Amino acid sequence: MIIEGKNAVRELIKTQKTIDKVLVQNGLRDGQSKELVSEIKQAGYKISFADKSVLDKQSRGGRHQGFIAFVSDYEYADFDQMIENARGRDCFFLVLDGIEDPHNLGSIIRVAECAGIDGIVIGKHRSASVTDTVMRISEGGANHVAIARETNVNDVIEALKAENIWVYGLELGGNDLYKTDLKGRIAIVIGGEDTGINRLTKEKCDGIVTVKMHGKINSLNASVACGVAVFEALRQRGE
Amino acid sequence: MIIEGKNAVRELIKTQKTIDKVLVQNGLRDGQSKELVSEIKQAGYKISFADKSVLDKQSRGGRHQGFIAFVSDYEYADFDQMIENARGRDCFFLVLDGIEDPHNLGSIIRVAECAGIDGIVIGKHRSASVTDTVMRISEGGANHVAIARETNVNDVIEALKAENIWVYGLELGGNDLYKTDLKGRIAIVIGGEDTGINRLTKEKCDGIVTVKMHGKINSLNASVACGVAVFEALRQRGE
Repeated sequence: MIIEGKNAVRELIKTQKTIDKVLVQNGLRDGQSKELVSEIKQAGYKISFADKSVLDKQSRGGRHQGFIAFVSDYEYADFDQMIENARGRDCFFLVLDGIEDPHNLGSIIRVAECAGIDGIVIGKHRSASVTDTVMRISEGGANHVAIARETNVNDVIEALKAENIWVYGLELGGNDLYKTDLKGRIAIVIGGEDTGINRLTKEKCDGIVTVKMHGKINSLNASVACGVAVFEALRQRGE
Repeated sequence: MIIEGKNAVRELIKTQKTIDKVLVQNGLRDGQSKELVSEIKQAGYKISFADKSVLDKQSRGGRHQGFIAFVSDYEYADFDQMIENARGRDCFFLVLDGIEDPHNLGSIIRVAECAGIDGIVIGKHRSASVTDTVMRISEGGANHVAIARETNVNDVIEALKAENIWVYGLELGGNDLYKTDLKGRIAIVIGGEDTGINRLTKEKCDGIVTVKMHGKINSLNASVACGVAVFEALRQRGE
């Protein structure tokens, strides 16, 4: 869905909607436009600047006033409901802490769907959201696995632990993944591509698990590491 | 490295060098140019058409005549030497049959490097080669793992089997990966993103192994599947 025009875009960024990107016309110099640009940036959205002709092409109504926002139609799951659905049985969640690359997010969602994961929780901070690109890369997987977005990953981990879910961070320098019991009620936290899991978040985890490296590069791509850990858990769980 | 000018590009495509792409100027209508374009296509190389100004910018000597080829400086390993180096000990190879996406190839090379794999063999047919993009996505891994390019994947499999290397194809519909013995001297064949492993190639394999799927999408991304299989093998091998 696209939203165009200054006022419409200003109202949009106040909502909780997932904005894929905002296209802004090159060379706007009036005060109102400059102000809106900084509001959009402050709200944490990505701006792509382009010539008027590009915006004219994208516009549906022709009255874009230099601003067009692309809004995702994806419907996120409710985190509490996700937890509720998993009560009283073994379950397996993924928590993503700062996955910024849409390709990695799409690929992780594809892994989760193929593995029959109960749900994915994406932290809102420094994180890609489920855009059309992510949907495509997940091969449509985002339609078949419950994905919730929550502001604070640490609160998510506390909530999972309160439900007797064992929370493991996947990161270098921890215990051998293959010597860790991954059965029962578990969640695995995957950190961002460059930064890994936030230090405070790591401290909240019940344990850190590691895929041992044997080469000169010291880490796998986030989605590959996720695949390795998730399918090792399935092996242990006899699924 | 770049090679420019009609004659230089014509000579280049007759060699075994890895050409990342050929840039051809828009709107060339003389017979000689048209002929060269079809020769390049016939040789199986990708052509990108662009305006003269783009070629002028890329040109080093200014005498591109509408044709600039970008040649990879990557040095492939020798397949026979690779096999020789692995004689008399446990070893682990990957064979790639038709991985066309540079992102997947880079990501698979990164997996192989992180896993300490003895070598990768890339079939030449319908396959990405080790370009700058692939190198970047492998996080430089292509510099640390031996990669050979061979014309015929089936011949490669025969050669591996003759060296008492057990060759498994990774594909849907085979034996459970986790119930297959992946110790000793092994190679795993990974098929192309859309087509999987060629039927004849599959028949040459000693066995087909499968990562069981639990969702509605029926396959993992090639590099993720590769990661799952390679690290399961390492687990079994006690590495």
